[in-house]
Amino acid sequence: MRKVSIVGIGQVPVKKQYEKRMRQIAAEAVKEAMEEAGVAKVDSVIAGNMLADELQGQKHIAALIADEVGLDLVEALQVRAATATGAAALRMAYLSVASGEADSAIAVGVEKMSGGPATPALAKALDARYEVPSGDTLISKNAQLMRMYMDKYGMPADGLVNFSINAHKNGVTNPNALFQKEIDAETVMTSRIISDPIRLFDCSPVCDGAAAVLLVPTEEARAYHENPVHIMASSVSTDRFRVEDRPEPLLLRAARMSAVTAFRRANVNRKDVDFYEVHDAFSIMACLLLEAAGFARQGEGWRMAAEGRIFPDGDLPLATLGGLKARGHPIGATALYQTCEIVQQLTGRAGKNQLNSPEIAMLQSVGGAASTVLTHIFGV
Amino acid sequence: MRKVSIVGIGQVPVKKQYEKRMRQIAAEAVKEAMEEAGVAKVDSVIAGNMLADELQGQKHIAALIADEVGLDLVEALQVRAATATGAAALRMAYLSVASGEADSAIAVGVEKMSGGPATPALAKALDARYEVPSGDTLISKNAQLMRMYMDKYGMPADGLVNFSINAHKNGVTNPNALFQKEIDAETVMTSRIISDPIRLFDCSPVCDGAAAVLLVPTEEARAYHENPVHIMASSVSTDRFRVEDRPEPLLLRAARMSAVTAFRRANVNRKDVDFYEVHDAFSIMACLLLEAAGFARQGEGWRMAAEGRIFPDGDLPLATLGGLKARGHPIGATALYQTCEIVQQLTGRAGKNQLNSPEIAMLQSVGGAASTVLTHIFGV
Repeated sequence: MRKVSIVGIGQVPVKKQYEKRMRQIAAEAVKEAMEEAGVAKVDSVIAGNMLADELQGQKHIAALIADEVGLDLVEALQVRAATATGAAALRMAYLSVASGEADSAIAVGVEKMSGGPATPALAKALDARYEVPSGDTLISKNAQLMRMYMDKYGMPADGLVNFSINAHKNGVTNPNALFQKEIDAETVMTSRIISDPIRLFDCSPVCDGAAAVLLVPTEEARAYHENPVHIMASSVSTDRFRVEDRPEPLLLRAARMSAVTAFRRANVNRKDVDFYEVHDAFSIMACLLLEAAGFARQGEGWRMAAEGRIFPDGDLPLATLGGLKARGHPIGATALYQTCEIVQQLTGRAGKNQLNSPEIAMLQSVGGAASTVLTHIFGV
Repeated sequence: MRKVSIVGIGQVPVKKQYEKRMRQIAAEAVKEAMEEAGVAKVDSVIAGNMLADELQGQKHIAALIADEVGLDLVEALQVRAATATGAAALRMAYLSVASGEADSAIAVGVEKMSGGPATPALAKALDARYEVPSGDTLISKNAQLMRMYMDKYGMPADGLVNFSINAHKNGVTNPNALFQKEIDAETVMTSRIISDPIRLFDCSPVCDGAAAVLLVPTEEARAYHENPVHIMASSVSTDRFRVEDRPEPLLLRAARMSAVTAFRRANVNRKDVDFYEVHDAFSIMACLLLEAAGFARQGEGWRMAAEGRIFPDGDLPLATLGGLKARGHPIGATALYQTCEIVQQLTGRAGKNQLNSPEIAMLQSVGGAASTVLTHIFGV
């Protein structure tokens, strides 16, 4: 199996409503990544998108994007894993290069959530027979988990505010972030209830965006870029599909299993991770992921946030360029934005958000109510 | 890159309307494939499905199917390429094992087209901005190609009937086929016009089904099965997305390119192919594929059919267990049914449809109006 590295990244700024079409912003991100690597062709285009079936009336988006980029007669396939779709695209592009079938592969994610009602389309990540008909959405599922967490571990109502505060603070200086404005605890705690106990500022926003990364074999990476970033591991695990069926709903087993697998494949342990791009679609999810990945004991993830250990100067910085909360969460593109940001951090190109010489980063991406979780580990 | 073999197949009979739920028929196919190989676990489940977003209100189907099978904490991802989706799942499962990340992978495809209006959902394989609004569907696109073909090459109106006649004849003795009834030229030519010049019997039916194959590294295959079938090549290519943008619309460049790549990877040439499971969603598509893959010269694919060379005793048997036309075309499952049938033929288990000791088979799968085509080559 060949080792794989990233030699180009591309991101369009996340917006609430993009005036451009889906295919156009996707193509912009791809072209930017290809330009950075100095290539005019790639072997493979793997596309991630979750909602275009409903919101744009468009399937078959991988071939559509390849055509829009001007790539003719290439491999193009679409991959999905609900809200972890961007990471699924990264994984398939990784396998394409690792296997030897492709010598260069683009992973591109795109989502135009402004194209129509996103919440019901997103809810299809849950069980259409046993969950959705009773009104469940991803928000209500996360609210349920947050309520259980507060009850079981005695977390106060404002226990998670630092996840949002940190994300918004980091978003201020990321030109690609949707929100570039600091917030404080009062902003969070006085924002309206969306699904009790989740408030507006516990949630990531509906938005549009596209991001891409270009992968090549590590042994050839320096021919494309002086500072390649290596994908040290890629993994994915399922859990029981419905939260109700899980032995311990507050333990995200898919996140734990995929983290354990990724650490083994990368031959590192969690102490080696310098920063963690977490799936903070909801603050409670970020908290549960910290625990599942082993960065905090169960019931204590919120304390890591409350103690400020997730801030840029903490021992495990999170959401370093704004996270899903402030940079935005254009579903199929999200993990690819995070990958781009990890590349920025690991190569000293994170601008005002630059951490102090990080060497290893971890990314986790959550599908639905954590029925699927992908983990990627990156290094320089 | 590791070589990959098939050690288990599973198929539910194709029906017009399945009383069982999508997840159930998918799980049945997976379990049958696992049982044949004698395994209770797999590393990876790659699922193909095109229409559940609309017809079942369900996304995130790979994790859902894994859960229904009882596979806990496994890799599960969904792959798509419009109407070639089943082949995309086969390819990703292939890459998972070939790369070394998975030691066993299920490729499963499922579609319940009876769940709602399939035609508009299928049309999303075309360009939602430039084609669908003017009324284009996959049927109208194929009708356009058939009209162009008749005009350019002087093919008579009944030039393609043998594609349907052959498929229906072969379906009679396949217990998994939707249609098990012979038809003649008159049946085809007096059936109603769907989209001129395409008649009802030029089209594959709307139906439900699920099929699965289990892949392992070739070097371990005989530990699972005494008669493994080897995947000699997997490839995919795009064409310009819209037919209108192609230099020569009647030449399916994606099919040609992916065939050429597959022949190179398998180190065989087209003369070595003993039978060809073609994407006969419409008879004209089967004809154009024969030409693009190089089995017939341009303008002469229909003659291969008219001369009976595609029948079981011809020099290139097609649709040997009924094809998309008679076995049925439950989109995301189709290429996996075809793969199962190829395994049946190559291992002498095709019953009354058994060809005379075939050794090499080719499968092509068409996404949309051939904007994406996948090619797989199999051998024993």
